[in-house]
Amino acid sequence: MQDTALAERIASGDRRALAKAITLVESSRPEHREAAAALLERLQPPFSPSLRIGISGPPGVGKSTFIEAFGLHAIAQGSRVAVLSIDPSSSLSGGSILGDKTRMQELGRNSSAYIRPTPAGTTLGGVARRTRETMALCEAAGFDLIVVETVGVGQSETACAEMTDVFVVLLLPLGGDELQGIKRGIMELADVVLVNKADGEQLGAAQRTVAEYRNGLGLLRPRSPHWVPVVEACSALHESGIDVAWSHIQTHHEAMTVSGAFHRRRTVQARAWLRDELSDQMRTWLTTDPSVAAELARCEQLVDEGTLAPPAAARRVIARALKS
Amino acid sequence: MQDTALAERIASGDRRALAKAITLVESSRPEHREAAAALLERLQPPFSPSLRIGISGPPGVGKSTFIEAFGLHAIAQGSRVAVLSIDPSSSLSGGSILGDKTRMQELGRNSSAYIRPTPAGTTLGGVARRTRETMALCEAAGFDLIVVETVGVGQSETACAEMTDVFVVLLLPLGGDELQGIKRGIMELADVVLVNKADGEQLGAAQRTVAEYRNGLGLLRPRSPHWVPVVEACSALHESGIDVAWSHIQTHHEAMTVSGAFHRRRTVQARAWLRDELSDQMRTWLTTDPSVAAELARCEQLVDEGTLAPPAAARRVIARALKS
Repeated sequence: MQDTALAERIASGDRRALAKAITLVESSRPEHREAAAALLERLQPPFSPSLRIGISGPPGVGKSTFIEAFGLHAIAQGSRVAVLSIDPSSSLSGGSILGDKTRMQELGRNSSAYIRPTPAGTTLGGVARRTRETMALCEAAGFDLIVVETVGVGQSETACAEMTDVFVVLLLPLGGDELQGIKRGIMELADVVLVNKADGEQLGAAQRTVAEYRNGLGLLRPRSPHWVPVVEACSALHESGIDVAWSHIQTHHEAMTVSGAFHRRRTVQARAWLRDELSDQMRTWLTTDPSVAAELARCEQLVDEGTLAPPAAARRVIARALKS
Repeated sequence: MQDTALAERIASGDRRALAKAITLVESSRPEHREAAAALLERLQPPFSPSLRIGISGPPGVGKSTFIEAFGLHAIAQGSRVAVLSIDPSSSLSGGSILGDKTRMQELGRNSSAYIRPTPAGTTLGGVARRTRETMALCEAAGFDLIVVETVGVGQSETACAEMTDVFVVLLLPLGGDELQGIKRGIMELADVVLVNKADGEQLGAAQRTVAEYRNGLGLLRPRSPHWVPVVEACSALHESGIDVAWSHIQTHHEAMTVSGAFHRRRTVQARAWLRDELSDQMRTWLTTDPSVAAELARCEQLVDEGTLAPPAAARRVIARALKS
């Protein structure tokens, strides 16, 4: 009953109910996982159409400033914007956002925006699951533009690009050789590349960087046959180029929708989510029984020592589970 | 009992028994999976120490010629060499190897070598599982140098690099801009880069390419703190540079062993294998019951349509499984 009430409050746009539900999906306690799944089932999709934007870039590129300017621009166009962070080390996360009140201050105060930092101490695997569920909750609460932020470090960009509809990479105005210093693999995922801080003394460097990346991206095979990645300069601080970025993202969204790629991609994402959930829930179910958990720990030890082959170990663990 | 006999024949180096066992692990039929797991359990590790070498490169780079020259060199140094292919589209696979008898002809005739093509129609996911198990079988049969070959297309190189001890990338002697045309992400995984076809008219181009990649790789963060990737020229056709490649791979192996990285990496690989096996076997167990399989198909459909959230779908499928 409580789930039904919570679901109704979320659907009516109650921000405290949304926050409470997100806290629920963030928990890894079995009874919370159970309640979260029940809640997600009650919040039956389809919700109103949403656009999920992944944003990545190196530390110091000005992601928070950009997201604030971009979010306010989107709200001015009629959007309701939720901002999530996919990795615990991100600029939205933990202590830093609590300590730094100036961050996204204006966006955070806007009634059409919702900003949710990542709780400290969350692992990437856990965050990916949490982010999918939090996106669904935000969409159920009527947010139609979901911004998922990630730092360009580790594997989080791939996860971010895989669970969003369009992937935006922010870059610093650095020329020449730095092109190759950028972590490879990120640029391959980018639909829209923005060279930020194109202002003041850095304007020339930013323009050169744009030219270089236009060349560089031309050598990569595009991620989709329906879209050629674009590169633009912007200044989040001076709010210039934000409209151009917005317009590219809209054009991308139209191209993907018209070609059917948008829907296909969402379907692939939902299937991947189901697969991950099945594995997670089965593993949770497996290790709920203490004797099975002990058998798993024992087998892991033998596998580590190289005295038991993993397929045989898995067989033992499952045999034990079916017995209990 | 039959498994025991097969295990003994494999351990004694019986090639027909090895081939039979590999055919068993290649099968996805439940009873064959069961028999394969039982067999792998009987072939208890640890086997004699092995080195697993991943080799990737674009089509036309001369991988087969290189693997033949390299394998014969390794055999001359006392190794017993098994050559596997990780992806179905690879040059070792399916019809092409059967049709093209001149391929690795000398290596294939050598009593210290074993070459196993990938069966046609295998998916990448299936191939990764098969390759891990086939490596274990080959090691049990006394092969101490396992060469895993992959084409530099798709995701197979990552899988290849993740399940081997050292990753070798073969390149063509092409200058300048092609540096950026190479699929990104591959070079980041390389421990040893070899520019093949460094002979005749292409010698100069090969040397320039070596210099360019030495520069290019210097900009990447090394994959391991214990090894700086090396770039060399070679000519598999003229068997030049093979000894240098061999020597770099030995040096890499020593550096990784002395630092403990070799063992740590094998442990991480074994844990990943166990995790994948648990998921696979639990999924197999789930879908063995026709009513559960039907529930999964129904839920997949609802997820595709966007009318059921994946966590709720997973919960339904597992609830049905626990009831049956």
